[in-house]
Amino acid sequence: MSSMMFVGGEKGMIPAEIDLAPPKDGQAFVRLLAAAFNKRDYWITQGKYPGVKLPLVLGSDGAGMIDQREVIINPSIGWGDDPNYFADDFKILGLPDFGTFSDMIIVPEENIYDKPGHLSWIEAAALPVCGVTAYRAMMTRGRAKKGERMLITGIGGGVATMALLFGVAMDMEVWVTSSSEEKIQKAKDHGAMGGVNYKAEGWDKALVSQAGGRFDLIIDGAGGKGFAKMVHHMNPRGRIVIYGGTAGNIDDLSPQRIFWKQLDIMGSTMGSPEDFQNMLDFVVKHKIKPIISHVFNLYEANEAMAVMASGDQFGKVCLDIPWE
Amino acid sequence: MSSMMFVGGEKGMIPAEIDLAPPKDGQAFVRLLAAAFNKRDYWITQGKYPGVKLPLVLGSDGAGMIDQREVIINPSIGWGDDPNYFADDFKILGLPDFGTFSDMIIVPEENIYDKPGHLSWIEAAALPVCGVTAYRAMMTRGRAKKGERMLITGIGGGVATMALLFGVAMDMEVWVTSSSEEKIQKAKDHGAMGGVNYKAEGWDKALVSQAGGRFDLIIDGAGGKGFAKMVHHMNPRGRIVIYGGTAGNIDDLSPQRIFWKQLDIMGSTMGSPEDFQNMLDFVVKHKIKPIISHVFNLYEANEAMAVMASGDQFGKVCLDIPWE
Repeated sequence: MSSMMFVGGEKGMIPAEIDLAPPKDGQAFVRLLAAAFNKRDYWITQGKYPGVKLPLVLGSDGAGMIDQREVIINPSIGWGDDPNYFADDFKILGLPDFGTFSDMIIVPEENIYDKPGHLSWIEAAALPVCGVTAYRAMMTRGRAKKGERMLITGIGGGVATMALLFGVAMDMEVWVTSSSEEKIQKAKDHGAMGGVNYKAEGWDKALVSQAGGRFDLIIDGAGGKGFAKMVHHMNPRGRIVIYGGTAGNIDDLSPQRIFWKQLDIMGSTMGSPEDFQNMLDFVVKHKIKPIISHVFNLYEANEAMAVMASGDQFGKVCLDIPWE
Repeated sequence: MSSMMFVGGEKGMIPAEIDLAPPKDGQAFVRLLAAAFNKRDYWITQGKYPGVKLPLVLGSDGAGMIDQREVIINPSIGWGDDPNYFADDFKILGLPDFGTFSDMIIVPEENIYDKPGHLSWIEAAALPVCGVTAYRAMMTRGRAKKGERMLITGIGGGVATMALLFGVAMDMEVWVTSSSEEKIQKAKDHGAMGGVNYKAEGWDKALVSQAGGRFDLIIDGAGGKGFAKMVHHMNPRGRIVIYGGTAGNIDDLSPQRIFWKQLDIMGSTMGSPEDFQNMLDFVVKHKIKPIISHVFNLYEANEAMAVMASGDQFGKVCLDIPWE
């Protein structure tokens, strides 16, 4: 197969031909037509994951064909039977198993789902990780309801933009934060009520003032110093779901606010097979298309990675995979 | 009625005779036989609650008689119809309405429940606040299950000792922390597997080592610096329920640990009418008796308050109410 192999160092990823062993019982062989990046791919190249052995084919998101069947891949490998938590041998596609930055892949058959018909190949490849992560965080964990006021911190990444689309589709009032005025405007273009720049003095009070009230649900991928402020601006019985921690550890959190308002602060990662199916059903029902920020050719994967490193994207950074 | 009125200053509480208006429709007149203290009573005297008008009869916990019927009082006044959160006009008995440090009280009829037959008057008065708070925190919010490993931080207070009894009754493995070796020993006398002194260096690792594994559920009334350590020692999908914050704000909390383990950190306060009834049923079924630390006469209420201020109690500080 033709792949971009991550070899580390200055070379980053380089083109390589690999021989694939034929699929075993219960495995499917997929010819990939598109792939997409996640922050995880970047963190792996930065040495933030243990146990990386080079060379490695990165990539957790992919869509393609099994003979004439159009499919997308659920990247949660071996979640197991418990909807509440993944099994001990759970892994995310792309480490240690070879991932989707390749024209072919072998994955468990149970991870194969039909590609939603309203999505292009690029859109389909953009969906799996951010779709299932946003769905589990918002719905399964966060119990999002129509009409509620939801805040998405740090809009721009895949999960955050997907949560925005989900919230708008189900008639929530969606608000965002960002360090970029341009991203706030883009979020409004996609249906957000508004947002504030979290680098501005007093951003949190300005946000509550603009929103006309406190929040019922927060989807947070940041943590850090802003988190405690958000707890202050929750409605009673509000829920905060944490799916990432790019801003570092959380400080100065008031236990009194948490117990008196009976808040739920919950962690969420990826999703169960049921979450994945429910996400697909929701996406099909509401004809949701993931927001695509950049599309590169497979062999331009290092340029795509540079966008991930910059954090400048709004939506997904994708790879178009040529067949030779 | 004969009451101990909180008048503030050096006098604290003083004996006083008050004329009660006759009960209105929907209200019950209870002749009190016993009352009990909560940390709340102490905090009120320390000016930690807004809107206190003196003189005030303190006290949220009480048991007594309505004619020949033996009753205890649910101190959650006006919780309302939503089991998830109390209504806007919710209040806890003893502020602003006159509380239980008195030989008579008028409360809503819906807050009257039959006194469990296996409890003495003092034990019955010790039950309501800590019983319902521990029950909601552990069961309704914390989803405690038989066989799970539970940690109760800062053992000694009413809620913590009641959570200990509940956990032992339902065959959980219960562990505790305290700054007092004597309290750890007392907890073991009541069925705890063991505990550590949180003032010792490396207490958290020592605790996990003693316990032979990580925790499924933590009942925490402290917050503060120890909290982040505890998050480190949770099992995947563990739950931490916060019902107090005596150690202050929480720092250095890792979002990565929260999302990867899919933890739930939840606040809980008091309980709904359903929680109160379920708590009583549980207490009757398991013949649980609240742990009584000190008993004073009503007119010794200032001495009882001094114990609350010291934090030296293990279990409830109670008042025996004489009839004249």
